[in-house]
Amino acid sequence: MNGDNDKENYQITFMPSGRQVEVESGISVIKAARLAGVHINASCGGSGVCGKCRVILESGTLTGGKSEKLTDGEYEEGYRQACIATIESNATLRITAESELGTGAMSAEVPIRHQARMHVFNIEDLKEAGVFMPPTEKRVLHLSEPTHEDNMADAGRIIQGLKNEYNERGFKTHLPVLKRMRSALRQKDFVVTVTLSRPVSKNGKTHIVNIQPGDVSHRSYGLAFDIGTTTVYGSLVDRQTGKLLARKADYNGQISYGEDVISRIVYAEKPKGLQLMHELVINTINSLIDKLLKGNDIERDEITSITLSGNTAMTHLLLGLEPHNIRRTPYVPVSTFFPPIRARDIDLDLPLRAVALVYPSISSYVGGDIIAGVMGSGMYTTEAVTLYIDIGTNAEIVIGNREWLVCAACSAGPAFEGGGITHGMRAAAGAIEDFSLNPATYEPMNITLNNKPPIGICGSGLLVIVATLFEYGIIDRQGKFNRDLDTPRIREGRSGYEYVLTWEKEAGGDSDIVINEVDIENFIRAKAAIYAGCKTLVEGVGLQITDLEQIILAGAFGSYIDLDSAMTVGLLPEVDPARVLYVGNGSLLGSWMSEMSNHIRRDVVEVVKNMTSFELSEVTDFKDQYIASLFLPHTDVSLFPETYARLKKSK
Amino acid sequence: MNGDNDKENYQITFMPSGRQVEVESGISVIKAARLAGVHINASCGGSGVCGKCRVILESGTLTGGKSEKLTDGEYEEGYRQACIATIESNATLRITAESELGTGAMSAEVPIRHQARMHVFNIEDLKEAGVFMPPTEKRVLHLSEPTHEDNMADAGRIIQGLKNEYNERGFKTHLPVLKRMRSALRQKDFVVTVTLSRPVSKNGKTHIVNIQPGDVSHRSYGLAFDIGTTTVYGSLVDRQTGKLLARKADYNGQISYGEDVISRIVYAEKPKGLQLMHELVINTINSLIDKLLKGNDIERDEITSITLSGNTAMTHLLLGLEPHNIRRTPYVPVSTFFPPIRARDIDLDLPLRAVALVYPSISSYVGGDIIAGVMGSGMYTTEAVTLYIDIGTNAEIVIGNREWLVCAACSAGPAFEGGGITHGMRAAAGAIEDFSLNPATYEPMNITLNNKPPIGICGSGLLVIVATLFEYGIIDRQGKFNRDLDTPRIREGRSGYEYVLTWEKEAGGDSDIVINEVDIENFIRAKAAIYAGCKTLVEGVGLQITDLEQIILAGAFGSYIDLDSAMTVGLLPEVDPARVLYVGNGSLLGSWMSEMSNHIRRDVVEVVKNMTSFELSEVTDFKDQYIASLFLPHTDVSLFPETYARLKKSK
Repeated sequence: MNGDNDKENYQITFMPSGRQVEVESGISVIKAARLAGVHINASCGGSGVCGKCRVILESGTLTGGKSEKLTDGEYEEGYRQACIATIESNATLRITAESELGTGAMSAEVPIRHQARMHVFNIEDLKEAGVFMPPTEKRVLHLSEPTHEDNMADAGRIIQGLKNEYNERGFKTHLPVLKRMRSALRQKDFVVTVTLSRPVSKNGKTHIVNIQPGDVSHRSYGLAFDIGTTTVYGSLVDRQTGKLLARKADYNGQISYGEDVISRIVYAEKPKGLQLMHELVINTINSLIDKLLKGNDIERDEITSITLSGNTAMTHLLLGLEPHNIRRTPYVPVSTFFPPIRARDIDLDLPLRAVALVYPSISSYVGGDIIAGVMGSGMYTTEAVTLYIDIGTNAEIVIGNREWLVCAACSAGPAFEGGGITHGMRAAAGAIEDFSLNPATYEPMNITLNNKPPIGICGSGLLVIVATLFEYGIIDRQGKFNRDLDTPRIREGRSGYEYVLTWEKEAGGDSDIVINEVDIENFIRAKAAIYAGCKTLVEGVGLQITDLEQIILAGAFGSYIDLDSAMTVGLLPEVDPARVLYVGNGSLLGSWMSEMSNHIRRDVVEVVKNMTSFELSEVTDFKDQYIASLFLPHTDVSLFPETYARLKKSK
Repeated sequence: MNGDNDKENYQITFMPSGRQVEVESGISVIKAARLAGVHINASCGGSGVCGKCRVILESGTLTGGKSEKLTDGEYEEGYRQACIATIESNATLRITAESELGTGAMSAEVPIRHQARMHVFNIEDLKEAGVFMPPTEKRVLHLSEPTHEDNMADAGRIIQGLKNEYNERGFKTHLPVLKRMRSALRQKDFVVTVTLSRPVSKNGKTHIVNIQPGDVSHRSYGLAFDIGTTTVYGSLVDRQTGKLLARKADYNGQISYGEDVISRIVYAEKPKGLQLMHELVINTINSLIDKLLKGNDIERDEITSITLSGNTAMTHLLLGLEPHNIRRTPYVPVSTFFPPIRARDIDLDLPLRAVALVYPSISSYVGGDIIAGVMGSGMYTTEAVTLYIDIGTNAEIVIGNREWLVCAACSAGPAFEGGGITHGMRAAAGAIEDFSLNPATYEPMNITLNNKPPIGICGSGLLVIVATLFEYGIIDRQGKFNRDLDTPRIREGRSGYEYVLTWEKEAGGDSDIVINEVDIENFIRAKAAIYAGCKTLVEGVGLQITDLEQIILAGAFGSYIDLDSAMTVGLLPEVDPARVLYVGNGSLLGSWMSEMSNHIRRDVVEVVKNMTSFELSEVTDFKDQYIASLFLPHTDVSLFPETYARLKKSK
């Protein structure tokens, strides 16, 4: 999503294995080692406190790399702490004995760690494809002053100017625009910039949505928001370049009234509860709008539209619609389509002229966030049979292509968001997000977010940890620990056997950080639900997993997912990793696209109308698939031939 | 405008002349006498205090007719005070000596006093003409409850119901409707009434503007308002029958900031002045809405639209548009067309769903009130060459028919509203509104509004007084008094000669009520401006006064105008009185019609676009016409052949 990436790449060589990896400047040595498949013991998650991750800088330059754990003499000799040293040039680094992996892994071959390709779009592509329909355009008018012979009304003068100067005709206008018309015309000698909002349909009329004194035609902005149950993301879009000028996020203000959708609905059913839920999320959005505008020197008055997407319940609360029946059988939302709304009507702090567009949803369980992803990723225009997966507490799955689309939702449980995992947590500072293991010593390399001492495990870390434990035979196909391993890191705890990722003294909290058999069981249930959902849906439409030509991953978890780990544990179907694309926050992407081009708004109605909803819970096949998936990677290993082959080899 | 007139008519015979007249029950004897052309001395305006208007009841029944001025004995003998006695049956009345007209007028011939015919419309006519397009319709839906097999969203269920039960499809809906949808459906077991707002144009979509639990399809209401500079009139319209359920009026709250349009604009130019002017008129409207609803047991929530019309300045203040350039050359309004507006946006106390429609105007000086009259009276659909005149401080004139329309405005000055007249006043209680004169004794018969002692002269009274004085030769063609008449009622005052209408002792105020030569001069200027405006406009479009096939009078003054007097003084062109129609408050009529049928909204854009504006002030011909009109009836008496013949005969 970041088009402004101008960081340099450097070549890093790790000795004694000689493994080489190209990495961006500024990343830590420990992350570079992880990319190279080189293990460095690093218990403390990159905060520098354990001092175990020392490497010797043989050539090149590193920034940092010294804490109290290293003497000045050691530093002079070239010792660096890998977790707090960052890459600034090509460099050769030697892994010291204490952090070195056992001999078995000393090959110079860099293992491929598959990350999904990032989906990138730009306006030029849309223009080339002939689908670029800018939702607003600015027109500068140089009008003549009224005289006795030519004393038509101000509005008439502007409409005549649009006709004469731009051959534009047939408009609707609005009271807030009329209110500022007289002054705007006379402020810069009858030179004004008129903002035209283009219709989506052929029969529609262009609306005059703003008038500004002088020529400000180069300034054109929109807002795009993803209203997540946990986090609200907002972006400021430059409509002329298509770029995201800024992106801000904050917790959804409703979060103090319950972490999940159901508890929010329950609260909304109380007297004044709906109003409060509405106000809380609106406050969050308004404060993000403040930040987006202030940080970019853009006036609130310059915003003419905002697109928002969220799941069905969040959309209801956003709009102040009664969500009661979303959680009650037979799960009926008030509406799945939402008309364009005046932003002020939902209390957004935007000009009276500003329009809020809200993504339609399919049902109580497949919401506007998913539709936004399907639209924004271009899935609905592709020929390839595509599986779109957005993984959160609920996993929403869409299969299809430009001819047909079928969607389903399954409850994965909160494991990927840290729920039900002893030391689970959201992806925040101190969360173990990546991991490797010395199979000889069982010592871990924990990589945490923001290089903070570990305080827990987030979804992406959990996936890699389980996959690694499984791959090295530390846990079996049912997720149970091999009890014969001689290491203090594997021990019996309150919830079965567990592996100690970080000792208390190196952790950010006041206990050892572990992963135990109950955690692994919960993880397996979650991954089984998703895999079973995908397989049931794929087979439900008459296809096989092998027919999938593309997988699109969405959601914060999807963005950081390690594909090899995901296929090793059987979370994702085993497909060629080159066919996996990730769109990051698909919901935000869809909103952004809607702010960029009207083709989204034109097409979304048809897409939603034609999308079929598949009720997994009503299919007995789903339950069977789920049970069959409660193994690593699956009961039927023939579904994971590559993983099976690798496992066999490593044994 | 009053379709509910069920009063009975009675035959009244006045002796000794034997003149007979048919009148409605409940009117005063003095008014009946006026209609019969019978003069009864009545100085005190019908309040009973002068006691001069005594008549003898020879047969039949009267109600009232006795004050302290009449002894019980006299009452027994049949004496009644004509001004405070009302007609209750057929009756014969004898004019007593003291109130009797001189012998010259003792013929039994009842003079025709021409009042314009009232314009009446009803829905059935519109239906017959094929132009009836109800703007809203209600549809009752009997829906089934959602099940697992049929769990579409509430909105989808309603749309499907409209399709299945009424074959209706293609809707737009609104957030306030969605907000109440869930509860409305479940309140009366999925029986709901949906209000559909019909599009004006063929390509337009029907909007779902309300949903109510149960079957309330028989209740459908709208509001129609005329926003006058002085008075705001509001009506409650039953859309099913087309009837006005109620009509209320109040002074425009802005009036304390200036009586005329210009002073309101001046105030609006001050800091926060526009906001204040806006709030004042809105407060007036809101309080009228309260009264209209409360008096008729209708919920605010049942109102889905309001139509408003007013002159260009009033419309600007209503909408909060800057009126600055309306009063500055070259007189440019902000806009002449106004989009449909959400009623709440102009702070009207109506549901969020309610739409406010505001009549477009032509220019700074021909406003939406005139367009409303042209639309409401059906002038724009007639074949007859029609002159439409709305007389107030400014007279607006429209000429044309269904093929073409040309409009003009001329400043008549405030004489018809009581301004610039020594004892001038608005048409309020105590205003002399009608008048006759005993040419032998010069004693007056004053008829006042509400039978109060006279406190002044309103526009319609002024017209009859000047015409009567002129007809009897008491004033000459220049409006100067014949100074040889022997009566204390004609005397020299501070402003030239004057006629005493009421002596102080019989008046409601503390002075004699007079009309003097300066008053008459001002009256003549006002009538000259209107006549010159009409003639210039008629000739400007290449026609002659004699080509006029119809005259439509509008405005409070126009409604009560005595046609004979108007033609005698040369205010109106001399045409067959049968060709004169009055529409009362044309502005209110237009708003009412717009609430009734979309054909008005459909046609008004074309009407306004095709209406040509004629600038009288820029035509030298207008000045010449004006100077030529500064005589009674006109310099060129051949323009008033009937008046001329009558005057010659009476001399």
